Amino acid sequence: MNRQFRLKRRPVGRVTRDDFDLVEAPVPTPGPGQAVARNLYLSLDPTNRIWMSDMDQYLPPVALGEVMRGGGVGTIVASNNPDYQVGDTVNGLLGWQDYCLIGAPGELFPPTVIPQGLPIPMTALMGACGMTGLTAYFGLIELGQPKAGDTVVVSAAAGAVGTVVGQIAKIKGCRVVGIAGGKKKCDFLTRELGFDAAVDYKAADWREQLKAATPDGVDVNFENVGGEIMEAVVERMNLFSRMPLCGMISTYNDANPPRYDLTPFLMKRIKLQGFIVLDFKDRYIEGSMQLAQWLLEGKLKAQETVVDGLETAPETLNMLFDGGNIGKLIVKIADAA
Amino acid sequence: MNRQFRLKRRPVGRVTRDDFDLVEAPVPTPGPGQAVARNLYLSLDPTNRIWMSDMDQYLPPVALGEVMRGGGVGTIVASNNPDYQVGDTVNGLLGWQDYCLIGAPGELFPPTVIPQGLPIPMTALMGACGMTGLTAYFGLIELGQPKAGDTVVVSAAAGAVGTVVGQIAKIKGCRVVGIAGGKKKCDFLTRELGFDAAVDYKAADWREQLKAATPDGVDVNFENVGGEIMEAVVERMNLFSRMPLCGMISTYNDANPPRYDLTPFLMKRIKLQGFIVLDFKDRYIEGSMQLAQWLLEGKLKAQETVVDGLETAPETLNMLFDGGNIGKLIVKIADAA
Repeated sequence: MNRQFRLKRRPVGRVTRDDFDLVEAPVPTPGPGQAVARNLYLSLDPTNRIWMSDMDQYLPPVALGEVMRGGGVGTIVASNNPDYQVGDTVNGLLGWQDYCLIGAPGELFPPTVIPQGLPIPMTALMGACGMTGLTAYFGLIELGQPKAGDTVVVSAAAGAVGTVVGQIAKIKGCRVVGIAGGKKKCDFLTRELGFDAAVDYKAADWREQLKAATPDGVDVNFENVGGEIMEAVVERMNLFSRMPLCGMISTYNDANPPRYDLTPFLMKRIKLQGFIVLDFKDRYIEGSMQLAQWLLEGKLKAQETVVDGLETAPETLNMLFDGGNIGKLIVKIADAA
Repeated sequence: MNRQFRLKRRPVGRVTRDDFDLVEAPVPTPGPGQAVARNLYLSLDPTNRIWMSDMDQYLPPVALGEVMRGGGVGTIVASNNPDYQVGDTVNGLLGWQDYCLIGAPGELFPPTVIPQGLPIPMTALMGACGMTGLTAYFGLIELGQPKAGDTVVVSAAAGAVGTVVGQIAKIKGCRVVGIAGGKKKCDFLTRELGFDAAVDYKAADWREQLKAATPDGVDVNFENVGGEIMEAVVERMNLFSRMPLCGMISTYNDANPPRYDLTPFLMKRIKLQGFIVLDFKDRYIEGSMQLAQWLLEGKLKAQETVVDGLETAPETLNMLFDGGNIGKLIVKIADAA
């Protein structure tokens, strides 16, 4: 059978199990030009929460009754399409389900076939060398334009994107300050990933920590979080600094998003630019190759939190908002054959 | 005598005459390396209001007791500096006074000598071909990156910067929509300056007017105003659109500036960049030459409102916030010799 999480209602605030119907459908049979993937890993990302809401966004929201959209990695188990061979590893929007029918009506992007023999773990294809890594890479390099000696601050620093942003900034010769919740995560950033400093936003003195960690101000703020943490970083930003706006995860569960003073952006001539990784789709190969090279050279660590079982997906997603994971958050659906 | 407006206290809300002492000092005598200019015209600009406030800004605030800072044009009447010859026309921060001592301690920027015989009126040296024009030119061209066929919206469109922004955007082949207060200004924009449409923000249906005027959305928002007008334009902005943030004049008198939702900037990948004309000081010659050429060719009209008498400066400044002027707002201090 093919277990599928279908969106039953639009969540209010945190996602709950009851926002979905978990149905058992037959394993799909490929029609002409179609293929079927056995899903092995599911990528959980903050943007999943946005897709569940009926708001203006960069992709259409998931319709009620539709299988929840989600990135994943799987293996082709049946195919009537010469682009997909049985046994191929594929990476794409496979959905919150056991099997994905590739080439079905309404498909947004066809999954990509991963070259055979690539010495990259499957989970890293979604994380450090996949969409997550590409988000970090293009947002930091193209929009942040870090120069050696710059101070780069990244929020949600122990998360999937943040861990990669900080490591790339170190490779580029920057002073790197991560903002994360709790001593364990902060220690991980400085001890395991080589960040120069970490600010624990759960500590009472986090504003002083931020100030002490950025004695020369902030040249690049890679923004993942929004809210008062973002405002405190903006206060530390330098003239002509850059702010790639990757996300504002702290507010995705809010019905009324917080509002911000734009005066510092004017006075300090800050360049703020929203982006999503899809904006750079023509350059995915370039980015993935660079990330894979750093991974194989040991300059980039692919940090991951893997939770077992498709049935855990809704609850597991909340880890992103509760700060429960370190690095890329992944649900394991099945073992590779 | 040299009449001088000295800042007495920091204005709260609107500027009043009582925020200044109008003192009569002796006409300055130039010391070694110094020169004296007779001020002829004073440029009144929204940023003057910012300089009066003790807030973080791009230049130091005017100190209490100091002569109010302001741009102007004058004639050198005495000089001990070979860079300034008696009779030269100079353009710079001459201050709210009858005479300016050039080379005095604390001078931020020395005034520029205007080449003799330049066929540009003195007032245009401050307006369409001066700081105002350069603000419009670099903000629109460099940050707005307009392409032919783009829809460009400019707020405070009948003001000094707005009139030039719109005319440059027309030269560049864009659809130009100006936002201004009142039918008279709106008619002026479409009939005299060739804007494609004008939105009267004082009309009850201004939101519908804006929607009707931007059927293909907005590619460039040259932002001068802030507040709810800005929010309404942001709502109309397209994917990958640009927003040069020149000012937020509607809120300069507010003790607590308004706050804004940044979600549309993320979702629509809008590039927002604050700037001031000083950021482009290495390219002033390029910009002024281009603007002067357009002026002499008749492609650019230098619209101005000139008020007589230095003593009117504080009240006249409020015209900027009340929408009382069309084009560049200038105080005439004295006739050229």
